[in-house]
Amino acid sequence: MAKRVGMYPGTFDPLTNGHLDIMGRAVKLVDKLVIGVAINEAKGPLFSLEERVEMVLEAVEPMRAECEIEVRPFDNLLMHFAEDIDASVIIRGLRAVSDFEYEFQMVAMNQKLNDDVETVFLMAAPEYQAVASRLVKEIAMLDGEIKHFVPPSIEKRLKDKLGK
Amino acid sequence: MAKRVGMYPGTFDPLTNGHLDIMGRAVKLVDKLVIGVAINEAKGPLFSLEERVEMVLEAVEPMRAECEIEVRPFDNLLMHFAEDIDASVIIRGLRAVSDFEYEFQMVAMNQKLNDDVETVFLMAAPEYQAVASRLVKEIAMLDGEIKHFVPPSIEKRLKDKLGK
Amino acid sequence: MAKRVGMYPGTFDPLTNGHLDIMGRAVKLVDKLVIGVAINEAKGPLFSLEERVEMVLEAVEPMRAECEIEVRPFDNLLMHFAEDIDASVIIRGLRAVSDFEYEFQMVAMNQKLNDDVETVFLMAAPEYQAVASRLVKEIAMLDGEIKHFVPPSIEKRLKDKLGK
Amino acid sequence: MAKRVGMYPGTFDPLTNGHLDIMGRAVKLVDKLVIGVAINEAKGPLFSLEERVEMVLEAVEPMRAECEIEVRPFDNLLMHFAEDIDASVIIRGLRAVSDFEYEFQMVAMNQKLNDDVETVFLMAAPEYQAVASRLVKEIAMLDGEIKHFVPPSIEKRLKDKLGK
Amino acid sequence: MAKRVGMYPGTFDPLTNGHLDIMGRAVKLVDKLVIGVAINEAKGPLFSLEERVEMVLEAVEPMRAECEIEVRPFDNLLMHFAEDIDASVIIRGLRAVSDFEYEFQMVAMNQKLNDDVETVFLMAAPEYQAVASRLVKEIAMLDGEIKHFVPPSIEKRLKDKLGK
Amino acid sequence: MAKRVGMYPGTFDPLTNGHLDIMGRAVKLVDKLVIGVAINEAKGPLFSLEERVEMVLEAVEPMRAECEIEVRPFDNLLMHFAEDIDASVIIRGLRAVSDFEYEFQMVAMNQKLNDDVETVFLMAAPEYQAVASRLVKEIAMLDGEIKHFVPPSIEKRLKDKLGK
Repeated sequence: MAKRVGMYPGTFDPLTNGHLDIMGRAVKLVDKLVIGVAINEAKGPLFSLEERVEMVLEAVEPMRAECEIEVRPFDNLLMHFAEDIDASVIIRGLRAVSDFEYEFQMVAMNQKLNDDVETVFLMAAPEYQAVASRLVKEIAMLDGEIKHFVPPSIEKRLKDKLGK
Repeated sequence: MAKRVGMYPGTFDPLTNGHLDIMGRAVKLVDKLVIGVAINEAKGPLFSLEERVEMVLEAVEPMRAECEIEVRPFDNLLMHFAEDIDASVIIRGLRAVSDFEYEFQMVAMNQKLNDDVETVFLMAAPEYQAVASRLVKEIAMLDGEIKHFVPPSIEKRLKDKLGK
Repeated sequence: MAKRVGMYPGTFDPLTNGHLDIMGRAVKLVDKLVIGVAINEAKGPLFSLEERVEMVLEAVEPMRAECEIEVRPFDNLLMHFAEDIDASVIIRGLRAVSDFEYEFQMVAMNQKLNDDVETVFLMAAPEYQAVASRLVKEIAMLDGEIKHFVPPSIEKRLKDKLGK
Repeated sequence: MAKRVGMYPGTFDPLTNGHLDIMGRAVKLVDKLVIGVAINEAKGPLFSLEERVEMVLEAVEPMRAECEIEVRPFDNLLMHFAEDIDASVIIRGLRAVSDFEYEFQMVAMNQKLNDDVETVFLMAAPEYQAVASRLVKEIAMLDGEIKHFVPPSIEKRLKDKLGK
Repeated sequence: MAKRVGMYPGTFDPLTNGHLDIMGRAVKLVDKLVIGVAINEAKGPLFSLEERVEMVLEAVEPMRAECEIEVRPFDNLLMHFAEDIDASVIIRGLRAVSDFEYEFQMVAMNQKLNDDVETVFLMAAPEYQAVASRLVKEIAMLDGEIKHFVPPSIEKRLKDKLGK
Repeated sequence: MAKRVGMYPGTFDPLTNGHLDIMGRAVKLVDKLVIGVAINEAKGPLFSLEERVEMVLEAVEPMRAECEIEVRPFDNLLMHFAEDIDASVIIRGLRAVSDFEYEFQMVAMNQKLNDDVETVFLMAAPEYQAVASRLVKEIAMLDGEIKHFVPPSIEKRLKDKLGK
């Protein structure tokens, strides 16, 4: 059996409990999981690329027992990145109908670009489905409690970053 | 019976017939209704905060017979604002599936922040469900007729503001 | 202040943790909550009307400290039942987009029948949103574990009923 | 690396090009694929269980080069069947928003029943997303052309069965 | 310019204000409108085929000034019926997301059956979008007021039929 | 029979196979089709207005045998543009649920502005439903293959424009 490589892409600005939940599921599906951190400078992320890579590296530490894991930044076309790392599976979390629609468009286009790379969707546990990085940042900025949405180390990083 | 306080938040840039319809329903549910006008400077509203507060004050005048009403600007976390004014109910209008999804996320996060404050959803009458402040402004800017979507006084304000 | 009466209708065949979650929220919104148990003979419910009323009565016992509660069967038009019991609010749980669409139709029609009775929607906590009576019965029938979805007393009733 | 077993359940009454498309994707994700044919007598399937198993067996023949494949009827709880065959992955095709909602409910309940078995969703190529067994049967019954929706051998079986 | 023939199919059990609204729009799009009354015996309609045809005939009377109109029962495949009457356009009302999904499936299949016949969707005025024949019958059966949802003559027919 | 004029609006930045599919359907519905190219300077289109008009002109050339076609830029209110060109029909492509929601809002508002101009929706063939101008530009910018999504001449224009 050849090694099955999966790729889980995201901006992780910051990593949330929702991302963690999906990663914990993804490691069971493949022999090696590459977490692709989208550089995404255009979006003006709050955390620098290094910080986002660091956050992901810390978070996946306990999952390394189950699966080979690599964390890599990428700035090219998702499908080209998947090809570069020999991924046969792209892993996406699915939360809501609007996600679904956007993903449907992306999958249909990706099938045209390379139909040998399959996109699979996983659903987070219900309590994590509503957690979105954007909302977590908004809440933190307005001094709201974010401990339910991110791991403790990221709660600290977010408060430091925002000077709270 | 303790006084039940409800909070209806919005940007009201400008207030539309859809907002009015929801307010007319909300006053029946609580003993006091606080209408929270989100300052929202980042969004670059067309009307100033004072103008938006004024528009809401004018519009709610005829509803004061039914319910104690207060109009207050706010710029902090929605849940903190609800706590500050002792609201036990947050009132939201529900128009479309995409609203629903976003609201679902917000409610799930708000339940984590404070599960004693309930969010309730009301549906506007069908003829008002499609009315959105953003579209009303676009139509007015292009010299379209907006009298079906906003009260007469706001039609006038909008035309003055846009120099039409 | 006049007493605010709410009505929460359902078939409760059987009552689930999802229903309980909504009831726990509803008691905070009104001074008296009438839980309407739809007779629904056409649907061929698994539990008899008496059993369903009993299940609801047991379940609401701990909530009586917070709110006056009544449990009543009904077989007439929802709006007529609401009028009979002087309810000014109909309470519905909202789980998913398909719920939303059906509810949208019902609310629009109910607004035409009597626009003084408001329908308000509440969202259950995310972990209860997927719990549906129909699925619980299916799982129980196939010897699946249902303790996550219903209170212990109802788990027992369901197993007895199905001879498991 | 342990063998990864996937399970793809369905009624296959009859098998369509949409099912075939999903199967062709599923074989790339697992080391062994068990296709579970739901007995589903309550639904009154048009084809007998043996016929449906036969149709699936014929259809998967060309995929056996890529993956170990087994076809098995089942009549118990989906999760129990998955456990019986040591599946770690349940594979589902995702077509439309209404699918998504139902699947969301099922996954949330299945996560409670056994969170070690992951459900993954695949999207068929766009041209197969609208193909549903029920519609294919309706069209065939009314003498419509079905060759775009099912493989030739199944077109023949369906016409024979309906006496067309 | 060749004559453009449109076909608007339905069961019309009974005809509602929503159907009327769509018909009033459809007559502006084509030179001849054929209203196809689906026999649909399997569904056990409340009104007989003759009654449903009669109801449609009465209702379209005032529209005949604008467009040639024909009312015809049909029991074959929708696309075959369209071909029989030389329709180049199938007209459908679109109300809600769930409609949309089902229609999406139907259109995709109909495009495969005959891509020369286009399906076009119209939206009823918002106040008629929630009106569904099934709900109107349910309300009438439970002695609810239906005058907002159907024309007066159909209100009378429905009450007579149900012995109200 | 008076001449039936249809209007199909868009930004066409750039024109895709999805637009072409809808145009190919639209020409069968009307006697004259006006394709309105929205100037949309605020959105900062990649192609200039002249380029976009040129692209549309080239693309519709083969359809002129079937229908009178005109291509016109516009910058005013959609409904005013429709009135200026005597259009009785606005034609829109419908791809996904989120489209549907937005369109629902627009149609409801347009019905208020002028209920004599009907909006009709067409569905592209499934393989073109996922094609969006925005995604095509993103893929081209990242050196992805776009030949499946746009006609050859537009593939060339897009590569030239991006210096690829």
